[in-house]
Amino acid sequence: MKAQRVEMFVCPSAAPADTSGLQALADAGKIRPDTLVALVGKTDGTGFHDDWGRIWADAALRDWTARFLGVPTDEVAKHVIFVLSGGCPGVITPHIAAVTRQWVEVAEPAGDKRLVVGRAGSDAIAPEEVGRMGMMRKVAAATHEAMTDAGITEPKDVHLVMVKVPGLTVASIRDAESRGHTVVSHDLTFGPEGAGSYANDAAALGVAMALGEVPESKLSDDVVRRDWDLYSEVAMTSSGGEKRHGEVVVFGNSSASVSPLVIGHSVTKDFIDAQGVRDALRSAGLQFNDGLPDESDLDRLVHVFAKSVIPGSDVVRGQHITLLDDHNAYQIGKALGGMLVASVTGRTTNYVSGGERNSHQGPPGGNIVAAVVRVG
Amino acid sequence: MKAQRVEMFVCPSAAPADTSGLQALADAGKIRPDTLVALVGKTDGTGFHDDWGRIWADAALRDWTARFLGVPTDEVAKHVIFVLSGGCPGVITPHIAAVTRQWVEVAEPAGDKRLVVGRAGSDAIAPEEVGRMGMMRKVAAATHEAMTDAGITEPKDVHLVMVKVPGLTVASIRDAESRGHTVVSHDLTFGPEGAGSYANDAAALGVAMALGEVPESKLSDDVVRRDWDLYSEVAMTSSGGEKRHGEVVVFGNSSASVSPLVIGHSVTKDFIDAQGVRDALRSAGLQFNDGLPDESDLDRLVHVFAKSVIPGSDVVRGQHITLLDDHNAYQIGKALGGMLVASVTGRTTNYVSGGERNSHQGPPGGNIVAAVVRVG
Amino acid sequence: MKAQRVEMFVCPSAAPADTSGLQALADAGKIRPDTLVALVGKTDGTGFHDDWGRIWADAALRDWTARFLGVPTDEVAKHVIFVLSGGCPGVITPHIAAVTRQWVEVAEPAGDKRLVVGRAGSDAIAPEEVGRMGMMRKVAAATHEAMTDAGITEPKDVHLVMVKVPGLTVASIRDAESRGHTVVSHDLTFGPEGAGSYANDAAALGVAMALGEVPESKLSDDVVRRDWDLYSEVAMTSSGGEKRHGEVVVFGNSSASVSPLVIGHSVTKDFIDAQGVRDALRSAGLQFNDGLPDESDLDRLVHVFAKSVIPGSDVVRGQHITLLDDHNAYQIGKALGGMLVASVTGRTTNYVSGGERNSHQGPPGGNIVAAVVRVG
Amino acid sequence: MKAQRVEMFVCPSAAPADTSGLQALADAGKIRPDTLVALVGKTDGTGFHDDWGRIWADAALRDWTARFLGVPTDEVAKHVIFVLSGGCPGVITPHIAAVTRQWVEVAEPAGDKRLVVGRAGSDAIAPEEVGRMGMMRKVAAATHEAMTDAGITEPKDVHLVMVKVPGLTVASIRDAESRGHTVVSHDLTFGPEGAGSYANDAAALGVAMALGEVPESKLSDDVVRRDWDLYSEVAMTSSGGEKRHGEVVVFGNSSASVSPLVIGHSVTKDFIDAQGVRDALRSAGLQFNDGLPDESDLDRLVHVFAKSVIPGSDVVRGQHITLLDDHNAYQIGKALGGMLVASVTGRTTNYVSGGERNSHQGPPGGNIVAAVVRVG
Repeated sequence: MKAQRVEMFVCPSAAPADTSGLQALADAGKIRPDTLVALVGKTDGTGFHDDWGRIWADAALRDWTARFLGVPTDEVAKHVIFVLSGGCPGVITPHIAAVTRQWVEVAEPAGDKRLVVGRAGSDAIAPEEVGRMGMMRKVAAATHEAMTDAGITEPKDVHLVMVKVPGLTVASIRDAESRGHTVVSHDLTFGPEGAGSYANDAAALGVAMALGEVPESKLSDDVVRRDWDLYSEVAMTSSGGEKRHGEVVVFGNSSASVSPLVIGHSVTKDFIDAQGVRDALRSAGLQFNDGLPDESDLDRLVHVFAKSVIPGSDVVRGQHITLLDDHNAYQIGKALGGMLVASVTGRTTNYVSGGERNSHQGPPGGNIVAAVVRVG
Repeated sequence: MKAQRVEMFVCPSAAPADTSGLQALADAGKIRPDTLVALVGKTDGTGFHDDWGRIWADAALRDWTARFLGVPTDEVAKHVIFVLSGGCPGVITPHIAAVTRQWVEVAEPAGDKRLVVGRAGSDAIAPEEVGRMGMMRKVAAATHEAMTDAGITEPKDVHLVMVKVPGLTVASIRDAESRGHTVVSHDLTFGPEGAGSYANDAAALGVAMALGEVPESKLSDDVVRRDWDLYSEVAMTSSGGEKRHGEVVVFGNSSASVSPLVIGHSVTKDFIDAQGVRDALRSAGLQFNDGLPDESDLDRLVHVFAKSVIPGSDVVRGQHITLLDDHNAYQIGKALGGMLVASVTGRTTNYVSGGERNSHQGPPGGNIVAAVVRVG
Repeated sequence: MKAQRVEMFVCPSAAPADTSGLQALADAGKIRPDTLVALVGKTDGTGFHDDWGRIWADAALRDWTARFLGVPTDEVAKHVIFVLSGGCPGVITPHIAAVTRQWVEVAEPAGDKRLVVGRAGSDAIAPEEVGRMGMMRKVAAATHEAMTDAGITEPKDVHLVMVKVPGLTVASIRDAESRGHTVVSHDLTFGPEGAGSYANDAAALGVAMALGEVPESKLSDDVVRRDWDLYSEVAMTSSGGEKRHGEVVVFGNSSASVSPLVIGHSVTKDFIDAQGVRDALRSAGLQFNDGLPDESDLDRLVHVFAKSVIPGSDVVRGQHITLLDDHNAYQIGKALGGMLVASVTGRTTNYVSGGERNSHQGPPGGNIVAAVVRVG
Repeated sequence: MKAQRVEMFVCPSAAPADTSGLQALADAGKIRPDTLVALVGKTDGTGFHDDWGRIWADAALRDWTARFLGVPTDEVAKHVIFVLSGGCPGVITPHIAAVTRQWVEVAEPAGDKRLVVGRAGSDAIAPEEVGRMGMMRKVAAATHEAMTDAGITEPKDVHLVMVKVPGLTVASIRDAESRGHTVVSHDLTFGPEGAGSYANDAAALGVAMALGEVPESKLSDDVVRRDWDLYSEVAMTSSGGEKRHGEVVVFGNSSASVSPLVIGHSVTKDFIDAQGVRDALRSAGLQFNDGLPDESDLDRLVHVFAKSVIPGSDVVRGQHITLLDDHNAYQIGKALGGMLVASVTGRTTNYVSGGERNSHQGPPGGNIVAAVVRVG
């Protein structure tokens, strides 16, 4: 039978256009044109709407990948999924994680489940679909397609679904309205009524629909950013104005895998819940005492993916916080998630996206954390 | 013999001028005009130079205290030391900690050392002395005076010295220069060459001088914000433009105390070192497993005081962070310290000040954490 | 017959709680408890949601006014209308304009029309009415009442209607939702879908309804921040979370006035239209050449009131601007209006509020400017 | 005799890497590989230290120019001077001005002086020279060289000297200190003690030295950002961390020119002085009434170059402004200059750099404005 062998390599980036880490992996033969399936990263910059760091990183990485694969730049997306999340405030080191997948022939399924990955692009998502059912359905379809690609049939084996969807821009709103459509919001920020938040949240509900976390009958345009009891525990979504299609990468465990890696996940119960981060590491098989992994544990911890969505309530464990009234809440909220994860992992190369207020990613007030651990 | 009995009460503040928590303590007889010695707090607002939240809080608390003590407002400072630190970004709940001290007659020294407090105001510090030897010497003298007031003779029994000193303002710079003096900086921020940073750091070196952590012979105007090997492990300093005098509060343990409280301290080794926070809690006698105190531990944890100074290096545990190039580094840096502490204490009412870049408060890259625990 | 005699005095403020300018006016007999009708000002601070400068100024001015009038603080609003707009970025000097009104007996109407003022408070506006028809109707009713109080019957004689209405806060949203109501937005900012913007705009449409600028039949919840062809040319509105009632001040000219002042207004055609500012000054009777009033002109120019709403389009005179994608657009947009006015008036004590994106205050892309000139 | 023929073309940029405007000029034959001498522009982004828009624009423009010239990218600087100023807050449209120069044979000098341009690169400027005499001398030498290249001998014929010099970065400071040198500041911002401000100001004094505006005997490390009576009226300088050499472009008028363009300049007397902007336009030969050029005037106005340095004083025309205490002063200060210029020119494609506090560019409180007008 065919089994996957998945690897993940984390390269810090000195600047948005820095591809030297990828080149070193290529030179060492660790990534090959026929094995590279995804690039997932955090890019240097503010993370705001006019953060050119992320746009530049996207352009530079696509150029590099096109040369690496020997295909035209506009065909890169057919071969490799890009999920770049902008903004590294605080203690989040800009980095790119390269994910490779090989298919190997094995005699029988392994005794334990190991990491598999699958990916899919969605149909084009029009500006008027952003943040609405149209986006949910297209993301759900792509999630199913990505699970099939990963060889996962049981939703419980899915531990992380990364989705990147189109946001809105001044230009795309103009386009939609010129064709007689409305858009979900004219606010281009990630504030509570911002288009970026609606896009991220419809994408999360699309994942929840695909995995059966929320029945389709409960979903409609009206529940987005209104009914917080509907959510996914494994969807990490982000959005950018320059995209036209959704991109989905599913990570899970399967017995049809000979990967040396395992993935696990958990959720934090609130914004300061370091225990939730520990739970995620332990769910992937990492053992440690007194709250902190030691150096040998860290050698086995390949990567952590976490969201840092700001809670909808200004009360944390019974006390008032001022974050919701803060002009810089988006950036500070993301930075705080970076610290929460780093305070447990003891390192700064963690993938942490977020900053938006309230989300269908994770339960109300809490956030999703996934961890990849080396076992082989 | 006379022994101190010190108590500390933490009141969350709903707004800068909120004195309802103090009033409730007064109504309950927990603080009395003859026992109140210090108000130490974090005030709602941005923490920037034009943060009126802190100024308003200062005015409102002084008014309340004047009425409480039955003295004119401009005499409040003779009776009660105010240390208000502006800016509660992220997960720092605005609050006021009221410190009381009674003198009681006891037969003999206690078997173990308990919390004592002492305080002193410095001589007036002129704008031209801010961030220089003049400020250091006046702070050192006030620190000695406060130790005497606390009944502490051994520097090792001092676990926290909170100092508030004058900063510079457009007006005070004009004043100094009109009298033919220079000032340490024309930059009114807390950036690397900002007057706020120089003020905080000269104050810290003043404490280090008083406690013998740095010999006076090594100190001069030139070492301030230059020779980072000179520092205090217990000085937490802040500065504000409206002040003319330094204010010093010393916290330590003494056998001439019957307080139900004990204080301890530690330092973090770098910006993400949650272990340093745990060490501080344990040094004050709190025991807990797996990195987090449980609810009964938290019942005993009265308060945590921490600095969150941004490191001078852009490398944390071998990886590059972008914080030093961030326009919002001051606010984000303070917020990150708040998260580091809250991730361990499991609550948000922690005193965390900071945001300045590099400091003589604590070792290079690390920060000071002190904890007060109830034992009686 | 009875005629009004209205005066306006502009006092710069050194700090939010600075009432020394008002006290000096009181000491000089220029304002009296029975003549003071309105305090209109710009307060020091960021203008953001957590700008305590405005809240403090409001508290301090109410306290002062209560003492001045000899009434309890909570009755001040019955006698004097407060319109305080927070945020003085750039070249806007914090200041308070005191408006007085006397009634004098005259033999016959004056030959020319002079300044009159009228004011009214609206009924309480619930959180669920903010930004919706409920707010419009209550503001319209209060505008009619204020016109009657001013003795103005013709809408064309109204040149400025200042309105301050309640905004939304975390607490007031919770209140509305606990009573089973929805609110117009959960976004507490002044962004395109922010509650602050909806509040300001419903208030503007309320004025437009009252003055017949927009027929009531065209108004509904749905047009707010959607149909920009509906607007007022004289409404300047702002909102703050702490208010429960709307406050309206109408300024216009009437022949039943012996004031030494005249008011006029104009609108700018776009965001850089200095000519619109000149037109406003000239409409109030100020003559000057080469674009700038000279010193004797300035002696006669008592005050300028202007909005600085950010355009909904990212194109100004055919060229792209990046302001709409800027995280600091609110503050920068307000600052730019301050510069546009100051570049014409040649001074910085101008009342300029704004920063919100798109508005029913003034035509699409343009802003309202009113000027008060001394003629007597 | 040989005479210059200089042209200037202004291309708005849709994004940092947008070279379509330049390509269109190339396709139309308006710029040629042998005529292009300088690209001067404003780039989209925040203008802060981590503004990747400017870095990306620089990379993209260099790539384009290398292909256009048919030279390797690292040789572009030998042929074309790049002066890119980051940050377009408010009403500054991102754009690139292409400057071309041809040498033509003419019978005799023209009757009137027309636009000429000269350029030069300086010797490498080490981090330890940034903001000090080393930088001044190298910039002065390059300015002389550029004047010679322009064919200008009289300093009074110089109306604009654009200089781009190296700033400091975390890396370059480390480099200097590792070699035993000090640097002028550890503050990487453009605040009052920021390295960016020192770099810009030493460059300005270098120009002043070259033009005789300040005698060399008055110059030393100590006067930089201290003695504001020393300044240039024509130097516009900026700095960026990625540079190692200074780049100087001199614009002036000469009778050895057959250009269809003339340049002039003036200075504003303070931060709100629109008259200074008008004076600059008129000094270049543009006539207009009532303060604003009309459309036919604008057809002749090719470009405006202005600085917007924040004043060192918080008093403008006798009134207090809060800009100096504002966390966003850098960005707001630059935006305000953009509005001051746009309010006169009636368009947004103006080159406006600035935001730093106090400068040797222009007199204390005032700023430099230069204008290029078409006469041929």
